[in-house]
Amino acid sequence: MKLVIVGGVAAGMSAASQARRIDPATEILVLEKTQDVSYGACGLPYKLPPDERMEDLQVITAQRFRDERRIDVRLGHTVLAIDRAARQVVGRHADGDFRLAYDKLILCTGARVWSPPIAGLDDLWGQGAYPLKTLEDGRVLKAAVAAAPPKRAVVIGAGYIGLEATENLRALGAAVTVVEALPEILPWLPATLRGRVLDEAGRHGVELLTGTRVESIARQGRDLLVQTTRGTLTADLVLVATGVRPEAGLAADADLPLGAAGAIAVDDCLRTADADIYAAGDCADARHAVTGRSVWFPLALRANRSGKLAGENVFGRERRVPPVLGTAAFKFFGLEVARTGLSGDEAAPAGLDTVSIEVLASTRAGYYGGGGKLSVWLLGERHTRRLVGCCMVGPESAAHRIDTAAAAIQAGMTAEQLYDLDLAYAPPFGPSWSPLLVAASQLIKALD
Amino acid sequence: MKLVIVGGVAAGMSAASQARRIDPATEILVLEKTQDVSYGACGLPYKLPPDERMEDLQVITAQRFRDERRIDVRLGHTVLAIDRAARQVVGRHADGDFRLAYDKLILCTGARVWSPPIAGLDDLWGQGAYPLKTLEDGRVLKAAVAAAPPKRAVVIGAGYIGLEATENLRALGAAVTVVEALPEILPWLPATLRGRVLDEAGRHGVELLTGTRVESIARQGRDLLVQTTRGTLTADLVLVATGVRPEAGLAADADLPLGAAGAIAVDDCLRTADADIYAAGDCADARHAVTGRSVWFPLALRANRSGKLAGENVFGRERRVPPVLGTAAFKFFGLEVARTGLSGDEAAPAGLDTVSIEVLASTRAGYYGGGGKLSVWLLGERHTRRLVGCCMVGPESAAHRIDTAAAAIQAGMTAEQLYDLDLAYAPPFGPSWSPLLVAASQLIKALD
Repeated sequence: MKLVIVGGVAAGMSAASQARRIDPATEILVLEKTQDVSYGACGLPYKLPPDERMEDLQVITAQRFRDERRIDVRLGHTVLAIDRAARQVVGRHADGDFRLAYDKLILCTGARVWSPPIAGLDDLWGQGAYPLKTLEDGRVLKAAVAAAPPKRAVVIGAGYIGLEATENLRALGAAVTVVEALPEILPWLPATLRGRVLDEAGRHGVELLTGTRVESIARQGRDLLVQTTRGTLTADLVLVATGVRPEAGLAADADLPLGAAGAIAVDDCLRTADADIYAAGDCADARHAVTGRSVWFPLALRANRSGKLAGENVFGRERRVPPVLGTAAFKFFGLEVARTGLSGDEAAPAGLDTVSIEVLASTRAGYYGGGGKLSVWLLGERHTRRLVGCCMVGPESAAHRIDTAAAAIQAGMTAEQLYDLDLAYAPPFGPSWSPLLVAASQLIKALD
Repeated sequence: MKLVIVGGVAAGMSAASQARRIDPATEILVLEKTQDVSYGACGLPYKLPPDERMEDLQVITAQRFRDERRIDVRLGHTVLAIDRAARQVVGRHADGDFRLAYDKLILCTGARVWSPPIAGLDDLWGQGAYPLKTLEDGRVLKAAVAAAPPKRAVVIGAGYIGLEATENLRALGAAVTVVEALPEILPWLPATLRGRVLDEAGRHGVELLTGTRVESIARQGRDLLVQTTRGTLTADLVLVATGVRPEAGLAADADLPLGAAGAIAVDDCLRTADADIYAAGDCADARHAVTGRSVWFPLALRANRSGKLAGENVFGRERRVPPVLGTAAFKFFGLEVARTGLSGDEAAPAGLDTVSIEVLASTRAGYYGGGGKLSVWLLGERHTRRLVGCCMVGPESAAHRIDTAAAAIQAGMTAEQLYDLDLAYAPPFGPSWSPLLVAASQLIKALD
């Protein structure tokens, strides 16, 4: 069999590696348009400080994949089209065009940086304005901040990447202004919890402008003039973190149906509408564990997991990829922010009648030093009484405690079953009634 | 109605408070033999250092229970017998004997310090040898170490309390030798994980003598000579942390059946064999979530939870207390140690055919600084493929990650369902495949 994989980051190399584990004989070809495979993209913001090395994000090199796993990784190979009838991919590399046959094809094209139209931006990419999506993006930005440590940075977009980059740009000594077009940052976060993130931004001297759009960027001498709907900002570095979109063009051009957010629609076995073409990772959609609907969550675990299973299912297996909850966490200075399941504004459109509660609980026993307050928000469905969403914000433990909520949602637990969990207790790690249990007791009351 | 509660620490005051919430009219009497109610006993070891105050463990004073919740707390009241026929408790206090009628009785007598026979120990209690179970124990020990900071301490018993106290005695500057009669410390912990605890003890200069019994203790001038089966130790302080036993004498004398470890046998509604007598907290047994058998876990969450439900069920409600997993965690210097469900040696006696696996995984993304390795041990049942036990040891996150395993066991998840969980990922908090998922993938293979 000849297996061709388009894209060699998380999903692509997971697929290739799993295919090799399953079958020593299959010819496995990975076509990657950049010069990098298999790197930890989520670590990019953390490698900006001077004592960190961007290259440490490289997990396994292309050469090692070739040597140790006999995976034919071809760098600088851009696939431009899929010829489904001929079962071939068509593309281009530095030395010319290529046309390669496949028996099975896995699309792992990931996501691409998306930004709203900003006048002048196109001329400034890499010359003052930077994305932070690929390892190469990281190298370019790292070189720029190493050559001239930024004094005043503007971060456009207040999502995970924008906020993580903000923390690391502050660590470089830059004054940072974050410009967000939406009326609020992190719109999925309940207002009180969002307030804690805003407070943390203020505590660390980060200026946050919401409901503000960037209209143009222009260079003036050594400065960049960032013109927004609320005035002009002066910066020496602009990070564009306005989000990503699924890289689904190849599939769309080949008439394969798309799902949520324009991601490639796949079934539970990662198959597209073409029995010989699979898709996995950030380019593909997923099924939500609560609503059963198509969703798009460009998150690392899903990318790795779906890649691995696609690399198995091309051999005719029917391993089902589990539904997703969008469980995610990030660090913002001294706060952990985490979520799983539905947010408050996702429930009603999904046809769920829900009620939410919120508690503030200690992260350690009250008499034990350190720690702080954890905000826990729970969303329960009225008629089933099951937990369908949870958010947490606090100085510690949120990123791990959220997993227990994720397990409860995935198991279909009711508020009562959540409250009945036998969770660990020791004074350095929490109160005897875990914050999640305290929240569950409130959810029970709210559902009554 | 007249409700009498014997014992006023975790379970007793939870019961009293819940009864008051439910019924403003009920006469609620709490008989506590010591002078303290409602304190955080689990915090005792952490209040030994000079900058900590033992009194901070007091959650709510007896007077506040009287004033704010109209709970008639009577301190220094020791109940000696239950006259079931007359529905009265008989006891003694400083001013004489008492006989008090009840309509419903809740026994929350807790646990008592147990120690093997050690010659000379009885003469040294409070005079060089100390238990650490009650708040008063804490005050006495605190006064002793404040008056004469220990230089050489011997801790007898290497359970949670012994090890937590060891860490805090080291913080006081004492050299500490821990003497454990069993061939190994923490026998429920898999060998590799136990090895990490032993290494941590060594790293912090703690001498650990296992398979060693203390035969006698004698005072010689300012020294205490601790004679063991492996020679004589010289100390200026001896902490006796050889464990606790259920304080079930009142119930046994009243011919109420006992369960595991001699704890008072209760049904899922916390009733003893006498319809008017309930038992909750460390004096009562529980049902194991995996085996369904009677077990005894003297742990704070169970004490609070069962007390609360008993305080509700005395009104004729039938709120069921959930089964337990013995989920527990403790800190030992720079390590977190946690467990939930069955240990390797508990499975076979319970009739389960199991298989275990062990993995070592990073607590953070590999390229993110800090953190370390988390040891995860999983136990799965062969024919059902469900997870039935988990232990974790590592420098961080074990005490919170264990909760996800607890939720999975309580939900009856198979290894496959555990592996399918959508858990959070961000570089500061873990690798993209959470250690628990890595472990689950190994358990799946082991079960195949």
